[in-house]
Amino acid sequence: MIPDLQLTADGRLRHLLTLDGLPAPLLRQLLDQAELLRPHAHAGSGARSRHPGRTCCTLFFEPSTRTRSSFQLAATRLGMDVLNFDVATSSTKKGESSVDTLKTIEAMGVDLFVIRHASDGAVAELAAAANPGTHVINAGDGRSAHPTQGLLDMLTLRQHKGDDFSALKVLVAGDVLHSRVARSDLHALRALGCGEIRVCGPANLLPAADELAGCRVIADFDEAVAGVDAVMMLRLQRERMEQGLVPSLEGYYRDYGLSPDRLARAAPDALVMHPGPMNRGIEIDGGVADGPQSVILQQVANGVPIRMAAIDLLLGGTSVAGLL
Amino acid sequence: MIPDLQLTADGRLRHLLTLDGLPAPLLRQLLDQAELLRPHAHAGSGARSRHPGRTCCTLFFEPSTRTRSSFQLAATRLGMDVLNFDVATSSTKKGESSVDTLKTIEAMGVDLFVIRHASDGAVAELAAAANPGTHVINAGDGRSAHPTQGLLDMLTLRQHKGDDFSALKVLVAGDVLHSRVARSDLHALRALGCGEIRVCGPANLLPAADELAGCRVIADFDEAVAGVDAVMMLRLQRERMEQGLVPSLEGYYRDYGLSPDRLARAAPDALVMHPGPMNRGIEIDGGVADGPQSVILQQVANGVPIRMAAIDLLLGGTSVAGLL
Amino acid sequence: MIPDLQLTADGRLRHLLTLDGLPAPLLRQLLDQAELLRPHAHAGSGARSRHPGRTCCTLFFEPSTRTRSSFQLAATRLGMDVLNFDVATSSTKKGESSVDTLKTIEAMGVDLFVIRHASDGAVAELAAAANPGTHVINAGDGRSAHPTQGLLDMLTLRQHKGDDFSALKVLVAGDVLHSRVARSDLHALRALGCGEIRVCGPANLLPAADELAGCRVIADFDEAVAGVDAVMMLRLQRERMEQGLVPSLEGYYRDYGLSPDRLARAAPDALVMHPGPMNRGIEIDGGVADGPQSVILQQVANGVPIRMAAIDLLLGGTSVAGLL
Repeated sequence: MIPDLQLTADGRLRHLLTLDGLPAPLLRQLLDQAELLRPHAHAGSGARSRHPGRTCCTLFFEPSTRTRSSFQLAATRLGMDVLNFDVATSSTKKGESSVDTLKTIEAMGVDLFVIRHASDGAVAELAAAANPGTHVINAGDGRSAHPTQGLLDMLTLRQHKGDDFSALKVLVAGDVLHSRVARSDLHALRALGCGEIRVCGPANLLPAADELAGCRVIADFDEAVAGVDAVMMLRLQRERMEQGLVPSLEGYYRDYGLSPDRLARAAPDALVMHPGPMNRGIEIDGGVADGPQSVILQQVANGVPIRMAAIDLLLGGTSVAGLL
Repeated sequence: MIPDLQLTADGRLRHLLTLDGLPAPLLRQLLDQAELLRPHAHAGSGARSRHPGRTCCTLFFEPSTRTRSSFQLAATRLGMDVLNFDVATSSTKKGESSVDTLKTIEAMGVDLFVIRHASDGAVAELAAAANPGTHVINAGDGRSAHPTQGLLDMLTLRQHKGDDFSALKVLVAGDVLHSRVARSDLHALRALGCGEIRVCGPANLLPAADELAGCRVIADFDEAVAGVDAVMMLRLQRERMEQGLVPSLEGYYRDYGLSPDRLARAAPDALVMHPGPMNRGIEIDGGVADGPQSVILQQVANGVPIRMAAIDLLLGGTSVAGLL
Repeated sequence: MIPDLQLTADGRLRHLLTLDGLPAPLLRQLLDQAELLRPHAHAGSGARSRHPGRTCCTLFFEPSTRTRSSFQLAATRLGMDVLNFDVATSSTKKGESSVDTLKTIEAMGVDLFVIRHASDGAVAELAAAANPGTHVINAGDGRSAHPTQGLLDMLTLRQHKGDDFSALKVLVAGDVLHSRVARSDLHALRALGCGEIRVCGPANLLPAADELAGCRVIADFDEAVAGVDAVMMLRLQRERMEQGLVPSLEGYYRDYGLSPDRLARAAPDALVMHPGPMNRGIEIDGGVADGPQSVILQQVANGVPIRMAAIDLLLGGTSVAGLL
């Protein structure tokens, strides 16, 4: 079930905090809207009349220029004003709480917050503190969720493999434990009825079993990759690991890196995906990342219309009750 | 008398550097204009045609994302382009003087500078160096002045208590010594003829007596708060204190914190004000800050139309000679 | 000959990476276009319809708020959206390569990159990695080139001295070794047929002889400055020097500083130029910098229309084949 916080009483989507619980029709609605907006996602003026003069604040408690930029462009191309608020240089240094920071900027007249935070659940807490008319999109919280990344991955998959996810075998591989991207991908793949979801990674970089419900965990990468239609590689997030637990990079690539040989075991037209930023030579071979099966830059490109679609759905106030 | 630097020879307001010396009719003109612009302060396109294509540069020699954001939104909603210039990452690191930095950006075609600086008087020095057609708003210099904060506080007071300031008792309490907000509030309250201005704070956090002319200094907070119509709390600015002089936080809250009990001694409909960012539990109780008498977020909201009004008056070139 | 990378197969200018090899007619075309756009360079809305909805990304691997701001205003005044991407706070910290950073942002829909990088040739490498439809302007790479600065210097010279460069004696003086500005100025002066190009600086701050082809190197500043029509002073870039090689500042000013006495030896109407940021009292006397012969702020002002012209030529897609 869709968490209450994300819906208004009259059945409109209020926030986008997680894909967990979002039903397939709502996910498809977002993907469809992204396709409609895609011609206007780059340089177009076609979508600027959708939300002119409304204000988007990117509120980042953890730095991420890539994701912030993608949202900034999405909001700009919908006609919005964008305020980038980097908490690293803000008043929270003067002892202000996250909620006070949000409420303060909200009072200046902000319609939509795009929030990233290092702590799990922090974005939902901020959303709960927001005024009824204010919308929040989670741009990544802790290890929990990064819903627009999950959506853009689904959009990319669908563009190549069609809308019948039940026909697909998808492998999510690498540092699953620290990855909010993986969690959002798994939620979306499950909701869309993906035929087989495989997960592969070092035992100490896999999450608890309940988070892998419905997935087939395969320890050996060679075996895991065999015959899949898409390989979703994850970044090895060394910066989130304790000193002693960082794996040797040579060993990691040998056991869990996507090499040309490994990719050759997947379906011949298997997609290579990665949320970026990549560690070339660690979790993925540089040639594979740039090769003909890679859709990594297409994922990035899809990020803009997906974010436009999410913003549009929240601000547009369309009822989604029929999709739940 | 209004300082010469702020006026042009033919009686137009050129800069807004301090409220010191601004007469009541001019202050009221700014408050009235803010009320007119308020419906367009958020998300409106109504005011965008006022100054399209003109350029505002926020030039911050001291970081403040909150104040910068408020000015950025105000200028954007008047149709201006905004250039954020954070000196922390700029050429002043390469040994350039503040004046050279200003003159350089000015030469790129900037109509209005919004300047914050850690040193008293630095903003006036920069304004004196600017070209005749360039306008400067002081967004806070040292301990001296923060005129738009003073104005937004008056706007908030007036919205609740009406325009007859002579009927009001107002308490300014806390770390007055380090507060440019307090100084601008005192200037405005005096000019508008506030019935009684009380000041309360630890002896070592009060300014020299001449800065408190016209105020009633009351040492005991319980006594000071009794019967007032508004309590303007100030942030304890520990970061501006020498190591040995920082008060114990428990003791500070006990003696100078706005607790529910203390607020109960004020008039029943007394307003609770704070310029932010707040230290909850140090100078103000969290429940009081969020309580029904608090207008703290309304102060923030008023910041946008007040800044729009100030920009509009400077750029509009209307004569203020009749108001002086 | 113009480097291949900067031209498309059908004779349009694709990138602006260096002035080296650009022929005089093309340089003059850029200067002429800058003059046409100059009335719209400040606060004008006249040029906003040229490239509405197209996206400029300033991608700075080395901080420079001045140059970034000039490009930001230029792009804004052409109607473009601007994305400022400061790599200091970006994913390259997470181990991403410069090329991956560029390709990622490019995929979000960027038409023009304005790139600064500390390494010689890095901007050309990034341009080589860009998609065919993407344009790159070098905003300074290592010691190599800063083409728009060279152009704005030529524009400033021409505004005062007319279009016949063969009649001019120009001195480039100071820390030539570390200066990408000097290199771009020398390329432009040579191409435009400057009558006499003099170079003066400490022996250990001069580049190799082949970089000074066509220049008259004069060791003594008094002799070098005698009778010239313009003195282009350079910033002493101590931050690029090894510890032991930084000259004494007193001695540097005595031998290579532009003092009033030295300036008096130049032609009576000689121009004083400096790319900024200035070290007053080190390479240039403060009074000379602010004196009647100084065109330093005019150089800054010319930066905006020059950058508008460069952007306009790249995005406009006009053939330059006839100018080569």
